[in-house]
Order: sequence, then C-alpha cells, then structure tokens
Amino acid sequence: MRALVCRGGLHYEPGYPEPELETGEVLVRVRQAGICNTDLEILRGYMDFQGVLGHEFVGAIAGLGRRVPAQAGLQVGQRVVGDINAACYACPTCLAGRHTHCPNRTTLGIYRRDGAFADYLTLPWLNLHPVPDAVPDEIAVFVEPLAAACQIVAQVKISPTDRVIVLGDGKLGLLAAAVLRLTGASLALVGRHAEKLAIARAWGVRTLGPEATLHGVQADVVVECTGVPEGFALARRLLRPAGVLVLKSTYRPTASSGQRGDDDTQQTQMLDMSSLVVDEITLVGSRCGPFAPALRLLESRLVDPRPLISAAFRLAEGAAAFERAARPEALKVLLTL
Amino acid sequence: MRALVCRGGLHYEPGYPEPELETGEVLVRVRQAGICNTDLEILRGYMDFQGVLGHEFVGAIAGLGRRVPAQAGLQVGQRVVGDINAACYACPTCLAGRHTHCPNRTTLGIYRRDGAFADYLTLPWLNLHPVPDAVPDEIAVFVEPLAAACQIVAQVKISPTDRVIVLGDGKLGLLAAAVLRLTGASLALVGRHAEKLAIARAWGVRTLGPEATLHGVQADVVVECTGVPEGFALARRLLRPAGVLVLKSTYRPTASSGQRGDDDTQQTQMLDMSSLVVDEITLVGSRCGPFAPALRLLESRLVDPRPLISAAFRLAEGAAAFERAARPEALKVLLTL
Repeated sequence: MRALVCRGGLHYEPGYPEPELETGEVLVRVRQAGICNTDLEILRGYMDFQGVLGHEFVGAIAGLGRRVPAQAGLQVGQRVVGDINAACYACPTCLAGRHTHCPNRTTLGIYRRDGAFADYLTLPWLNLHPVPDAVPDEIAVFVEPLAAACQIVAQVKISPTDRVIVLGDGKLGLLAAAVLRLTGASLALVGRHAEKLAIARAWGVRTLGPEATLHGVQADVVVECTGVPEGFALARRLLRPAGVLVLKSTYRPTASSGQRGDDDTQQTQMLDMSSLVVDEITLVGSRCGPFAPALRLLESRLVDPRPLISAAFRLAEGAAAFERAARPEALKVLLTL
Repeated sequence: MRALVCRGGLHYEPGYPEPELETGEVLVRVRQAGICNTDLEILRGYMDFQGVLGHEFVGAIAGLGRRVPAQAGLQVGQRVVGDINAACYACPTCLAGRHTHCPNRTTLGIYRRDGAFADYLTLPWLNLHPVPDAVPDEIAVFVEPLAAACQIVAQVKISPTDRVIVLGDGKLGLLAAAVLRLTGASLALVGRHAEKLAIARAWGVRTLGPEATLHGVQADVVVECTGVPEGFALARRLLRPAGVLVLKSTYRPTASSGQRGDDDTQQTQMLDMSSLVVDEITLVGSRCGPFAPALRLLESRLVDPRPLISAAFRLAEGAAAFERAARPEALKVLLTL
C-alpha cells in the first residue's frame, strides 16, 4: 500500500506492507487524513517514532478482525473515525475508565503503531466511532483534534462567569476557542496571525494581539496552545492567582529551553515552583479527548472547522504537504487518499 | 516590646517598637507562637523579608482599632488565632472570596508586616478567629499550619476510594496526613524519619520509607510536602497518569535546582512540561487555608497535633529555638511569650 513513513525524514513508500488485522481490531481504508503539529514534532525527533505517520483520519471499514462483537454494529463500508490510543482494555487503568493512559497502549502514528498516512490502518474496534451521514469527510477528519479541545472542558469546570483566554492561534488554539465559546464564558483568543484570529472572530470569539500579555490581563482560566516553550511564561502572566492553566502543548526539546541529559525526547523547562504554590495555580496537563462529544458538535454544526483547511494534497505529495503544514501561516493541511 | 527580628540574621530585640493600631485592625498580645520552616527559609533569604518573624500564633486581644464593628464580637482579653494574609478586603480579588491572594496584602512575619515572635502584633479584625475554651494554647498555635493542610481538601476533591500519598514527614506532611486520613481514602505517608512516621502511625496512618518511590507505587493523589526541590520528581514517580499532584513546598533557590537570573528569591527547577501533558497530570499549588475548619478539627480532637511539639523556648532564647527547629529530627518548636 501507499504510505508516508517517518524514518530519518519523511518518505513516500508506494509498496509499504499492509497492516496485519489482529484479533479484536478493525481494518480501515483511510479516506482523508490531517497533518498535526505533533507530526511535525515527530519528524524532528519527538517520541523517537519510526513508521507510518498520521493520527487524524476519517476512513471506511475494510475488514473486521476476529472477536469484533456483532453488537458493536460495525460493518464493512461504514465511515468511521478513531481514537488514536490503542489500549489493552483489560488492565486496571483501562478498567478505571482511563484507557488513554493504558500502560500497554500503542498510539496511532506516534508510538509503536503505524498511522493514518497510508491506504490502510488498524485499530481496536472499541476505538472506532461511526460518522453520521451529515458529517462530510473534510469535517470528520477534525474529530481527533476537536476531541482534544473537548478534553479541556472534560477536565476543567468552566463557568459561564469565568474569564477564559486561549493562548495561541494555531489549529488547536482555534478549536479550543471554538469549544470554549460554547460555555458562555468571557473568552478571548490571543495570537499573532491576523488571518487566524479572523477565523475566531467569525465564530464570535474576541481576539487579542500578543501585547495582551503585557497589560496585566487576569483570566480565571488560560489554555496554553502555543506549541512553544515560551508559551508557559506568557500564560502565567495572563492568569490570575488561584487560576487554572491548561497545558496542551507538547514539543521536542529546544536549545533555548534546556534539556535533560537522560531523556532528550522530552521537553523540559525552568519552572518557578514556589510561585505556583504562593499563587495557588492549578496546572492541568491535557492531551487526547472524547470522540463522541466532538462528533456531536460537528453534526450539530455548533463547531464548523472548515475555515481551518489551508490546503489538501494527495498522499504522494506528502513532502509538499508537510512543507506547507510547517509554514507559519498554515492551519490544517489535509491528505486525500 | 520584645521581638525576634530578621535583619541579616536573627536578633532578639528587647526594645522593639510596638505596632501601631490601624483603623479596622486589632492589637493582639501574643501568648504562644510556632516556628515554621518558612521562618527558616526567610532567614536564608526567602521573600527578602526584614522585620519581626513569625506567623503561627495564639494570643489575646489587647486593643481594638477604630471601625472594628461591634457585631464582630471581638473583646479585649479574648483568645484568638489569626489568618496571616492581611488583605484590603475591598479589591475585586477580595470581593471574589480570594482574600489570601489580595494584591494589596501584607503577610504576617513574611511580607511587609511585622510578625508574631513579639509581645504584640496587629491584624485586620476580619483575620481573627476566637479560640474555643476547649482548645488550649499549645493546640491553638497549630491552627495556621493545620489550616494549610485543610486547604488541600478545600482545593482538591479527595474521594474515599482514592489512593493518596503524602510525601514528606515534616510538620506539614504530618498535619496533611492527619487531615487526609479523615477522608477515608487509602492513605500513606512517605518519609525518612522513624520517629516522625511513628506519630502518623499512632493516628492510624500507614507509613512507607523512601524506597516506596522506587517501586512504581501509583497513587491517585500525591501531596508534596518535602520542602526540597527533589520532592517534585519523587512525587511524580508516585503518581499515576491523570493523577493530581498537590504542591505545598516553598523554598529559596538552591544551587542544585537552578536559579533564574532575574529573580533570585524564587525557586525554579527543570520541569518536563510535555510529560505533564502526555500523562495529563494536574498540579495544584496550595498555600494558606481556612481557619474555621482547622479550629473545628482541633476542638473536636479529630486532629491532635501535640505529638508534633518538639520543644518550647522563651522568646529571649530565640537563637536556641531556631537552632533546634533547624535540626532534621525536630518538628514543632514553640516560643512562649
């Protein structure tokens, strides 16, 4: 099959082996996939991953493995999206409802599992969510990042009386703003790119330039989506004492932000711990989120992510697609299979 | 009046000026005071404070300033304890119920307000809490640190089904364990000092040695009370993914933990931010707490802090008292006025 493979750089391989269909798993023919900043980070060494990249996709079921229960209602040809954390669904962590933290998990296109930038992928049947007919492919491909935005409100109680700031006008910042605006909170998106901020304004979200971080703005909740280490200090400056700072960014280490000698795949930076205690700040690390609410928001059109689509490429044009996705002005770059 | 003053070291001054009684404030004759690790840190330079040290006290009202309302029910001679954050009680932060974060606040014996290691102190009348007759001085003097322990459950929902670890068997760690054991959670205190751990065991708290941090213990909530920068990494090791890490320690910078060039009164250390995101850890900075519940726990004897008293000294013996409080085996050292 065709695949975009990360192996000391990005390679288009037209003859990559198809994935084996394991017990309890489902074979999916990918229809459309999205390039995430995490993909760019992985190409730069984050997670030390080798294999087929990609974890945002919409596809159609192409085959059902053994022991996929009939009650699951999954059928060949059905359009699906899929949670990227392939958990064991048997350990205490999974049984406690935290399958995205399963210690035995593999992660689609990120950790020990080939990803979505290929003709086929496999996932456990429990990971798959049928896509309603009313949600076209180019919208459904946003379910995974939108679920990550939904995770913010799954973790943190946002009151309609709160002042909330999303810091960073990239894809995740915009989707976070799209979800958080539904809470009725006083919301502002802080970013540097006029065209990206304009998308949020069209959704009714107030936007502020980066100078906002200099004026002693005091939000109850700040969501850090900048994707760069400097974002943390900016977020701290925007947050009131006893406020909540949601961390969404992951990145590889950079020279400017310090590295741990023993683990250079992880980002480290200087943090003033006493100041977190004195100001009673709550930091909330936030990663993958629930697919069902993201699908509901897309089906109801309460969130329409289409303004985020910057370009679409064929899989064989992967190099050009990644080059485009890495540009500062780019938002979502799609790959069409 | 007599006072223990921090001014390039600790000085006993028998002729220190009595505090002025401001409008809305109350003059308190100190009866007993406790030495906190923060006092030791301040002597080492933390907070850059100069003045009378001390913020844990029980005293008797010696005078009422102008505009202390009669409805407050405060009377000369009444025994009181007092919240150390002298807020303005007029700004938006105070009116939002967060007076401990008032940007105009002074803090007893810590920041721009003389403290409790003296014959007299003053505090706003709103800071004072009458002490029930059933609570003797040597117990009442623990209200302030016990309130800080109560702040943990004020900030974080602890379920009786949670596994909770308190890391650090110092004064705050022990008081945190004393409060957290009341939740019914599966609680363990991790520490290095056999005599201190024995106090917790006498309260029915399970104790573990420091080797617990090597065995992949996975708690739902870890409360970091070690008072040293290394405590954070240990706490992280004890915490499950998607768990809550409560930070209670403040300290001055040390060479081993890194310093920011621009602000050497604050502790900084290397933090792996991506790992907080990937593991969806919640960090909760936790400082001062509510006095009323602490007084209730002491009055009901659900918490009896007396095993923590290591020694009592006269105020003039301040140097010896601080020397004693700095010893590794010491717990609470009291100063009797």
